[in-house]
Amino acid sequence: MTTRVEHDLLGDKEVPAEAYWGVHTARARENFPITGTTISSYPHLIEALAAVKEAAARANAELGLLAPEFADAICAACQEIREGALHDQFVVDVIQGGAGTSTNMNANEVIANRALELLGHEKGDYAYLHPNEHVNLGQSTNDAYPTAVNIATIIAVRGLSEAMTVLEQAFAAKAVEFHDLLKMGRTQLQDAVPMTLGQEFGTYAVMLGEDRLRLNEAVTLLHEINLGATAIGTGLNAAPGYAEAACKHLAAITGLPVVTAADLVEATQDCGAFVHLSGVLKRIAVKLSKSCNDLRLLSSGPRAGLNEINLPPVQAGSSIMPGKINPVIPEVVNQVAFEVIGNDVTITMAAEAGQLQLNAFEPIILHSLSESITHLQQACLTLAERCVSGITANADIMRGYVENSIGLVTALNPAIGYAAATEIAKEALATGRGVAELVVEKGLLPAEKLAELLRPETLARLR
Amino acid sequence: MTTRVEHDLLGDKEVPAEAYWGVHTARARENFPITGTTISSYPHLIEALAAVKEAAARANAELGLLAPEFADAICAACQEIREGALHDQFVVDVIQGGAGTSTNMNANEVIANRALELLGHEKGDYAYLHPNEHVNLGQSTNDAYPTAVNIATIIAVRGLSEAMTVLEQAFAAKAVEFHDLLKMGRTQLQDAVPMTLGQEFGTYAVMLGEDRLRLNEAVTLLHEINLGATAIGTGLNAAPGYAEAACKHLAAITGLPVVTAADLVEATQDCGAFVHLSGVLKRIAVKLSKSCNDLRLLSSGPRAGLNEINLPPVQAGSSIMPGKINPVIPEVVNQVAFEVIGNDVTITMAAEAGQLQLNAFEPIILHSLSESITHLQQACLTLAERCVSGITANADIMRGYVENSIGLVTALNPAIGYAAATEIAKEALATGRGVAELVVEKGLLPAEKLAELLRPETLARLR
Amino acid sequence: MTTRVEHDLLGDKEVPAEAYWGVHTARARENFPITGTTISSYPHLIEALAAVKEAAARANAELGLLAPEFADAICAACQEIREGALHDQFVVDVIQGGAGTSTNMNANEVIANRALELLGHEKGDYAYLHPNEHVNLGQSTNDAYPTAVNIATIIAVRGLSEAMTVLEQAFAAKAVEFHDLLKMGRTQLQDAVPMTLGQEFGTYAVMLGEDRLRLNEAVTLLHEINLGATAIGTGLNAAPGYAEAACKHLAAITGLPVVTAADLVEATQDCGAFVHLSGVLKRIAVKLSKSCNDLRLLSSGPRAGLNEINLPPVQAGSSIMPGKINPVIPEVVNQVAFEVIGNDVTITMAAEAGQLQLNAFEPIILHSLSESITHLQQACLTLAERCVSGITANADIMRGYVENSIGLVTALNPAIGYAAATEIAKEALATGRGVAELVVEKGLLPAEKLAELLRPETLARLR
Amino acid sequence: MTTRVEHDLLGDKEVPAEAYWGVHTARARENFPITGTTISSYPHLIEALAAVKEAAARANAELGLLAPEFADAICAACQEIREGALHDQFVVDVIQGGAGTSTNMNANEVIANRALELLGHEKGDYAYLHPNEHVNLGQSTNDAYPTAVNIATIIAVRGLSEAMTVLEQAFAAKAVEFHDLLKMGRTQLQDAVPMTLGQEFGTYAVMLGEDRLRLNEAVTLLHEINLGATAIGTGLNAAPGYAEAACKHLAAITGLPVVTAADLVEATQDCGAFVHLSGVLKRIAVKLSKSCNDLRLLSSGPRAGLNEINLPPVQAGSSIMPGKINPVIPEVVNQVAFEVIGNDVTITMAAEAGQLQLNAFEPIILHSLSESITHLQQACLTLAERCVSGITANADIMRGYVENSIGLVTALNPAIGYAAATEIAKEALATGRGVAELVVEKGLLPAEKLAELLRPETLARLR
Repeated sequence: MTTRVEHDLLGDKEVPAEAYWGVHTARARENFPITGTTISSYPHLIEALAAVKEAAARANAELGLLAPEFADAICAACQEIREGALHDQFVVDVIQGGAGTSTNMNANEVIANRALELLGHEKGDYAYLHPNEHVNLGQSTNDAYPTAVNIATIIAVRGLSEAMTVLEQAFAAKAVEFHDLLKMGRTQLQDAVPMTLGQEFGTYAVMLGEDRLRLNEAVTLLHEINLGATAIGTGLNAAPGYAEAACKHLAAITGLPVVTAADLVEATQDCGAFVHLSGVLKRIAVKLSKSCNDLRLLSSGPRAGLNEINLPPVQAGSSIMPGKINPVIPEVVNQVAFEVIGNDVTITMAAEAGQLQLNAFEPIILHSLSESITHLQQACLTLAERCVSGITANADIMRGYVENSIGLVTALNPAIGYAAATEIAKEALATGRGVAELVVEKGLLPAEKLAELLRPETLARLR
Repeated sequence: MTTRVEHDLLGDKEVPAEAYWGVHTARARENFPITGTTISSYPHLIEALAAVKEAAARANAELGLLAPEFADAICAACQEIREGALHDQFVVDVIQGGAGTSTNMNANEVIANRALELLGHEKGDYAYLHPNEHVNLGQSTNDAYPTAVNIATIIAVRGLSEAMTVLEQAFAAKAVEFHDLLKMGRTQLQDAVPMTLGQEFGTYAVMLGEDRLRLNEAVTLLHEINLGATAIGTGLNAAPGYAEAACKHLAAITGLPVVTAADLVEATQDCGAFVHLSGVLKRIAVKLSKSCNDLRLLSSGPRAGLNEINLPPVQAGSSIMPGKINPVIPEVVNQVAFEVIGNDVTITMAAEAGQLQLNAFEPIILHSLSESITHLQQACLTLAERCVSGITANADIMRGYVENSIGLVTALNPAIGYAAATEIAKEALATGRGVAELVVEKGLLPAEKLAELLRPETLARLR
Repeated sequence: MTTRVEHDLLGDKEVPAEAYWGVHTARARENFPITGTTISSYPHLIEALAAVKEAAARANAELGLLAPEFADAICAACQEIREGALHDQFVVDVIQGGAGTSTNMNANEVIANRALELLGHEKGDYAYLHPNEHVNLGQSTNDAYPTAVNIATIIAVRGLSEAMTVLEQAFAAKAVEFHDLLKMGRTQLQDAVPMTLGQEFGTYAVMLGEDRLRLNEAVTLLHEINLGATAIGTGLNAAPGYAEAACKHLAAITGLPVVTAADLVEATQDCGAFVHLSGVLKRIAVKLSKSCNDLRLLSSGPRAGLNEINLPPVQAGSSIMPGKINPVIPEVVNQVAFEVIGNDVTITMAAEAGQLQLNAFEPIILHSLSESITHLQQACLTLAERCVSGITANADIMRGYVENSIGLVTALNPAIGYAAATEIAKEALATGRGVAELVVEKGLLPAEKLAELLRPETLARLR
Repeated sequence: MTTRVEHDLLGDKEVPAEAYWGVHTARARENFPITGTTISSYPHLIEALAAVKEAAARANAELGLLAPEFADAICAACQEIREGALHDQFVVDVIQGGAGTSTNMNANEVIANRALELLGHEKGDYAYLHPNEHVNLGQSTNDAYPTAVNIATIIAVRGLSEAMTVLEQAFAAKAVEFHDLLKMGRTQLQDAVPMTLGQEFGTYAVMLGEDRLRLNEAVTLLHEINLGATAIGTGLNAAPGYAEAACKHLAAITGLPVVTAADLVEATQDCGAFVHLSGVLKRIAVKLSKSCNDLRLLSSGPRAGLNEINLPPVQAGSSIMPGKINPVIPEVVNQVAFEVIGNDVTITMAAEAGQLQLNAFEPIILHSLSESITHLQQACLTLAERCVSGITANADIMRGYVENSIGLVTALNPAIGYAAATEIAKEALATGRGVAELVVEKGLLPAEKLAELLRPETLARLR
């Protein structure tokens, strides 16, 4: 392997000659041998970093701080990266010390070296164009990195939001399909009063819709960026007008309505928006998990369970029990939910551990958020496509539960009173007999009145 | 002790003759001997329950379902409770099974017995006015209880929001007071670049202001109520027009803009708004804890620490070390923050565990939320009044750090370049000498230019 | 109210004349208005503090550092407190800053003032006998307080361990009672293969037994104490031989085999044993919650659920649904479990936040641990006495599930092969017919062989 | 791509002709598109699965249930896998539904096809040797998979334990190196009393040693396996003697003292040992994080911080601030700790969610445990090698803090009393003067006596 020599604060260091990354990245690779997964696994982040660097270059050029040909070369390199090139050059571990400095320097180096090539120079000829002095001009890790994280997260959340819509629509379609299917509602796992399966599935759709609203509100907070803050928010070394110009260009490049935070010192150290977003992701996870718990319960059986619905079989369920089909799709969604809830604790601790003018732990926040968002997205799509859309109902079994139920007696409260109804319920439970039969036998209500009160449409408040 | 005998599904049971609560409450007391703390410790909830019962009675009377004299007696009893009477009759344990049924029945029984008294009857004469048939008319625990929890929480959050404002103002006042005090900013606990103490304290005020906005958004979700849903959201046994009427009366009684949820089946099982609110409380806790960590760090010393600020002494710090003063107020706030973060996990698990048409675990959600809100409120007030408002600054020490700092060199980047600046920094670190001195000695910049670049106002971007 | 004046670092302060507590406690009451609950709610801690103070006094007397009459008076006061007296004088809030200093000073003051009385002096006459110079002699909060916390926790855990034994025995008794009752086992909520209800209940007993072993191992770690460490573990101001003597006396007083930690600097800052214990409490909570989930599921119905077992009814389940009985006892246990799991996060954060030579956040650790232990204890007893011991089984329903089950086919694998068994299972599922019937019809096995393979005793591996 | 056709419960499916995996794996790949990371990323698990399958084959052969040539072929395939072959054929996603069935079937299929090759057959010729009927003989996922998870975890923990030893030794070496360096101890970030830097670093070594003991205790629990339990612990379809034989062979193959659990029904559903282990990993994370917090604090500066120690520089700290060096190694360890703490919550929720005879969520438990163990291992090694071993001390700065400290006054308590010492401390704080100077000036102690009391060796209790 041929190498070139680069230099930094600690001295000289060889890097592979063909690498676009340089000495800072090389040291970081050695310093953080934690997960074996590199930041190239975050394509949205790589592209967002390129967008930030491009916006900075344009702003610097506009302010006369960067020669046009340098700016052009930097922008050209950034555009290549945004279109998917050179992602394999982002080689720092996803869990890294240093508040994102290594990620930022990895980006500076790759962009500088690609720009050098475009300008006809060799990689590493930083005398012409320097990762820090030109690509990072007017920036610090502490503003460039969180700005890129915000943008990457906004894009990632968009994917999740779309996946949630797909799942919401799958549930809503089932709500329509099952509109008339009468069944027992249950509270505390005990028979309650009748409802329809359509109402039950409609609930899941409504929940998701509300969660999606919260998600979109949370992501709005991320549009506030701190580009121009430099090291601690005072904007030291950023030229007057730079923050505004960089923000304007970043909005243009990304198509996102980003705005500069009102208080850059605060914005530079604050992780509130990430904690908030993670809280909303946790909320989504909680609801998804609850919905999957319900699906697994309603489809339990087939003979020794509730057996009200059938999940589509997607694989054999057992290596030993022939014919067994398990609810593996809801199960995988439950597990993603547990992961997201754990990630929220990780993010909480990382955010709390920030000190003074900076939170040094943004890399684990980014990592956990990114994992939560993408896994939730895949979970929603998988649940919609491989489970919910194929669910069928066992209408006869559900109706049988209703007709056999003691819970029907609730509907008679207004007619016979809570106390008399309680006595009927006790007798039904003790004898195994039906509520209607006992009411008629005791002469509490005439049969026609009873039939009217116990009409399915009445009971489930179907319109 | 004289007793009276009441009757329920399980048979007869003696209750103290003077008790306003009855058989259902008596059984619940025996069933839940968990914490020894009763629901009377939630005054907002007791008053909210009374408000809900009053609204229901008015709605029922309006619809002709409840005789006016019964409605009047019930409303009179509820008003007494809302004004603080009979709270000691709410005796069920705060951690209870049953989705709040025991709390709801405790309210039904107390109101019924007080109404009976007002009507000239004996306590327990339910033949005249019955806890279930009259006080609970048109309701279920599953709509009355969460509606009351929502209202109690809205009121409690109002107190927290006010306390946050007090703390925000205390920080903001210090930001003004410390506006001109130059100090070193620090990132990753390492000297970074200069700023002012006013900027540092301003940050805490801004953070709190943002958190308060999020809190108020979160509490908006609680204005959506499910009164009229009855057992599972189908509204079984609630008369047509009842939900609308009850909501209207509840809004009038409480002065809150409550609205009936669009999908009552969903609203009855959903705990999303609680999870969301808890997430925001956690966010507040994270920020408060971070701010207190900073206050403790900045006031560390007095001789072997940073010693930039002085927290007001509020008690002797040690039983053995004379003269030691500890940052006990920030410390207690840290601990409240840790509690709130733990409570968020409790709430998350309870919400996830909901099944089918109801979440049976709302009592622990209420308990944890209530604890988080009131402890955060007290923590904010205590921090403002017993700590922040008395903080003083050690201006000379802070300025000494700046003048002695290597971080100054960053400001010279635009003038001498990152590479040259790095060499200066290395030499300053190795020799213990000052940055300015070295720059002049090496002839990198003339002394006047240097003095201009290192002016405090320039460095901290003070306007 | 008459008062006396006391003096500390901050100046003079009036305290109620009849109060046994003094100026340090008075300031702490004002400083920590967080929960409204005082440390008197921890009787084990109050008594453990008295034991520590008594042990220290005896050691100091033995070493000639404390006059015998002072030591006697201090010991007499401590003994009164250990027998239950003066607990109401422990008035500091449970959530407090200062690493327990206020609790320790509250103890020093109460003991000093009671000793003064016993010696014929007035409360507050510290010139004779001083809270710091005599009661706290040779100690710091940083060794006296954690030692007391350890002892209090050991005693509290003993109560939990006994409660777990009660619950374990209740489950074990049911395992015997249900030994022969055949039922379907279920994996992933889908019918699996037959077992007995006795096996199912035996599992809960075994789980609890294992958890109890882990609990007892964890509590062993708490027997290592740091008394004699004083402020930071160097033992500054503690006389030679003091640590050994104090430990010896503490062992004698408490009857516990406490030992002095090998490295007192480490022991003074370490919260590992608390984190470990909390982890075990969380494990217990997880298992208890799982068991209660199962009980609620197995007793679901009565008509539209599994209905395999009946939990004893302990209260009416609904304010609107007559005759409804809910699993309120398991539900309350679930909620305690969620609380314990949240407390574990609180304890984790508090432990992680310790800095350098001390963890300042032990009060919230104590608070959370204490809550987890006592609530779990009450939960176990309640579950045993009000639920498990009264559970009955629906043997016919369980046997019906077995006979009707497709899962029976698994037992035929060795005889007819997995592939043929899978075909039988598919046909049974599609047609609703029985497995045995299909096997015979297809001539796969002779009826007698089939009957032998499907004998309940064979299936459930009953001996 | 050429394919072969395989068949399962759901019908025919094409798989790549060269794939060792088959139809069950193919379906699982489609069903779980969650993370994109396959189980081949768990080499310990792949090898443990091969060990389990080999042990089962040997046991079955021994009992005459499996033809010797089949057993030999299976064992040969397993040995290849245990030596590292075919890992790329384990292609199911790490987050998967189905309680590990897909992982188990992936193993069955790969082993069967490799054995078929060894026997001279084509891949897919299951008529000769079948994944379920031969490789999985006598097993269920529900015993084979958790047994493999246990073994993989035991091996992984061994690596962590060794890494902890490396770190412990690095700290212990520094404790020796820094044995005589006097410094101020700090409690609650306030100056306390003197100690040595050797004591401080010794503490970190002791903590790690204790954690390692707990880790090794926890891993002992994993040696109890449930092989032979089959589907739910009743051992249905496993031959008499099989469990014992399989356990014996597994012990021989792995060299681990595994034993069969006493109650297989309990062992099959229980996740207690995983929750316990995760709790211990969390404890380790808490301590590591605290130690890293300390290292970052003690090395803060270099000019505006404590600056007592120097961490070895490993990379440039900033893209904008020349010469800045940050504590990036401790920071990355902090982040791993936060991840482990979050994973503990994930594992807790997954364990709690188990229902009846099985926990369906073991895959996420395995995933989180595996991540925690390997990341902690890397974190320990990195911290030892790239940070702790290169730490140097600033002895003069530390001694200066001691000499200048007010905390010295504590050592005078026994000589001048707590009250007089408090007055001295107050005056020192107010005037900025030294304690010794004031004591002499006030004639409280003769200078020689004072010098004796304030000797460093005395203060720090150095022997």
